[in-house]
Amino acid sequence: MPPPSSSPTHGKKKSASAPARTPDQPRHVDNALLADGRLVRLTIRDGRFDAIAPMADAPACADALDLGGLLVLPLLVDGHLHLDKTLLGLPWMPHAAGPTRASRIETELGLMPTLPLSTAERAGHLIRACAAHGTGTLRTHVDVEPQNGLKALEGVLEARAAHRDWAQIQIVAFPQTGVMRAPGTLELLDAAIAAGADLVGGMDPCEVDCDPAGQLNGIFAIAHRRGVGVDVHLHESDELGLFSIREICKRAKALGMQGHVTISHGFCLGHVSESKARATADLMAAAGVNLVTHGAASHPLPPLALLREHGVTVFAGNDNVRDIWSPYGTGDALERASLIGWRADWRTDAQMMDAFDLVTASAARGMGLTFSPVAVGEAASFFAVRAGGVAEALAARPVREIVVRGGLVLARGGVSSQSLVSV
Amino acid sequence: MPPPSSSPTHGKKKSASAPARTPDQPRHVDNALLADGRLVRLTIRDGRFDAIAPMADAPACADALDLGGLLVLPLLVDGHLHLDKTLLGLPWMPHAAGPTRASRIETELGLMPTLPLSTAERAGHLIRACAAHGTGTLRTHVDVEPQNGLKALEGVLEARAAHRDWAQIQIVAFPQTGVMRAPGTLELLDAAIAAGADLVGGMDPCEVDCDPAGQLNGIFAIAHRRGVGVDVHLHESDELGLFSIREICKRAKALGMQGHVTISHGFCLGHVSESKARATADLMAAAGVNLVTHGAASHPLPPLALLREHGVTVFAGNDNVRDIWSPYGTGDALERASLIGWRADWRTDAQMMDAFDLVTASAARGMGLTFSPVAVGEAASFFAVRAGGVAEALAARPVREIVVRGGLVLARGGVSSQSLVSV
Repeated sequence: MPPPSSSPTHGKKKSASAPARTPDQPRHVDNALLADGRLVRLTIRDGRFDAIAPMADAPACADALDLGGLLVLPLLVDGHLHLDKTLLGLPWMPHAAGPTRASRIETELGLMPTLPLSTAERAGHLIRACAAHGTGTLRTHVDVEPQNGLKALEGVLEARAAHRDWAQIQIVAFPQTGVMRAPGTLELLDAAIAAGADLVGGMDPCEVDCDPAGQLNGIFAIAHRRGVGVDVHLHESDELGLFSIREICKRAKALGMQGHVTISHGFCLGHVSESKARATADLMAAAGVNLVTHGAASHPLPPLALLREHGVTVFAGNDNVRDIWSPYGTGDALERASLIGWRADWRTDAQMMDAFDLVTASAARGMGLTFSPVAVGEAASFFAVRAGGVAEALAARPVREIVVRGGLVLARGGVSSQSLVSV
Repeated sequence: MPPPSSSPTHGKKKSASAPARTPDQPRHVDNALLADGRLVRLTIRDGRFDAIAPMADAPACADALDLGGLLVLPLLVDGHLHLDKTLLGLPWMPHAAGPTRASRIETELGLMPTLPLSTAERAGHLIRACAAHGTGTLRTHVDVEPQNGLKALEGVLEARAAHRDWAQIQIVAFPQTGVMRAPGTLELLDAAIAAGADLVGGMDPCEVDCDPAGQLNGIFAIAHRRGVGVDVHLHESDELGLFSIREICKRAKALGMQGHVTISHGFCLGHVSESKARATADLMAAAGVNLVTHGAASHPLPPLALLREHGVTVFAGNDNVRDIWSPYGTGDALERASLIGWRADWRTDAQMMDAFDLVTASAARGMGLTFSPVAVGEAASFFAVRAGGVAEALAARPVREIVVRGGLVLARGGVSSQSLVSV
């Protein structure tokens, strides 16, 4: 299929300035290329796909939005972000922290209160940056620690409410400064769930707290009592990390929380022999413990295909996007999946579909959410790019020509909307 | 500094359709932000920077190209590409090769002759894609092997001639199918240099040829006799790769070819202990043997900072861009540098400048070329992006709003020009 020749345009030019359409009026989106190769008209009504029909059968409609053969894909799911930490929206700030986790924590505690933008404002910038790249669902960790209490959470809750139409946002109450070493944190984590956070977080139970039983018992108890999930940052290396994974799996199983527990990073899985990785993958699969990765940067990538083969739900997220921890990142989940595919040595179209799955269906499953494919009856949520199929989109990561969520236009030409109107 | 508010525009809108200016007429490019923070007028005449002066001192000029505060950076240098292999310009082709190097070679030999676009056409697509990302100098390896002889080289020579104004292109005659195991290859490599290639290539002298002395003696003899450099693809792991590096260094020194020899990839440097890496770095520095990396994908990244500290010239390149070997890649050298910085755990502005250096000054030095900074008397070559400085540009990799080489506009808004006219 030759590349489409034009940007998405309205059948009638003047319709761009026509009165906003009401959601119950049907809206035709023409010449949409589906991932299976069909060229279709998408009909949207009340924010849902009302019909999807071959273009060949579609009666002429002068008022349709013509995608001109752009590939239409479901919105992306980013499984690991830090909305509260981002510096997006501010002028560039050079990386100020030293190379240790302790220095980054300390630098962050010092710098964040001095920023001229609030948590809600910065989080909003990142939500919209993600949306401009086609992300409609995300999980964010939010710092909950004694010095600032629930302040960051309150800011992210405010941003979440203000961006209700932009994204579904899961919040992990994240004990960035440790749990046992920072007295009062367990109570704050509990209060965070009461205040609206969706999961209890954890953080290197051995390396940070030097008390894995204490941290894991504490966070799992809150999660179990509150009926929410757990997502633990695990940077610990090699055997130390494997030990923590085993301790996490033990608790997930004992408390019947299978499917609701995620390990973030799990670098150790890329440090150990294949046989140890396989044994750990079996444990994780049996305990319903998921893995979310950002591509592991300077670590060996965990064996993602092996983990998937063993039944572990593996998904992906961008992690830090221009913050005190890392100056890198743009919030593009498609780029993240491409990067992970490259690092995983996934080259065939089937393998590239696996990479795409890390930021779509598997991510939703790992987060306990229902995934919205481009299908009749589903929310009218999609993005469109110049590509012949999923693999090409993953490789080229073209500009997201249009991003639509529940029938509302979140972005055009890679730029997020000023205000949301129906497509 | 707030982000600039507008795309580059002409002072007078009608100047866009005015008669093409002649190169000897001075052309003002206003509100260019330099990497050192100065906001300047660039005056271009005869394809060179004739003057660079603070905007505050610049007399009004209605006909200037106004960059509106965009950051102006020197053109990028891509140190490792395969122009002859790319499938750019064709509809997406799923990855067809198996996971071994042998399968990729065999698949390529079978598929390439069946493509509907010539080598020159595909190479041209990639040169222009690189240009649209701000690359004005590149080194390409071109397959030279018994089955197709110099055919690929002829195609790339044709593309190079046709794109003389787009990029300075170095060609490595690359023995993709081996040297000793493919009789006739040494003669072809010699003929390739005679025909216009600039360096002699090599390929895993142990793993592919099982005759490191034979391959290295052969290729170094041609290079020495012809007075050209050497660039060896080295994927060999661990001690095997270190052995090959030592053999390469030995010959570079013995033949007085210091500075003209490059190792591509050198994955082994990321596989060994720090002490072995340091010893090898010392050997390479003493022998004037450079390293070019594409970020090592599924391998540990070679210790780039350590190599630089030991005096090795390290640079970067994109390697395969959508070809039979890899479906990934876009030809963006800034993205490549960003990816390498991320993998290298380089976070401070100084470290991010180091990453940028891998695709600018160090790359030119590694290729034996003079680097063109944005300075009076230099070629008027630059690209402009929305960023406050080099580190932000590296992190965000914004669209290249305009790319100019020798006073000619290669691209605007990330899209390569149809024909080249003066800025």
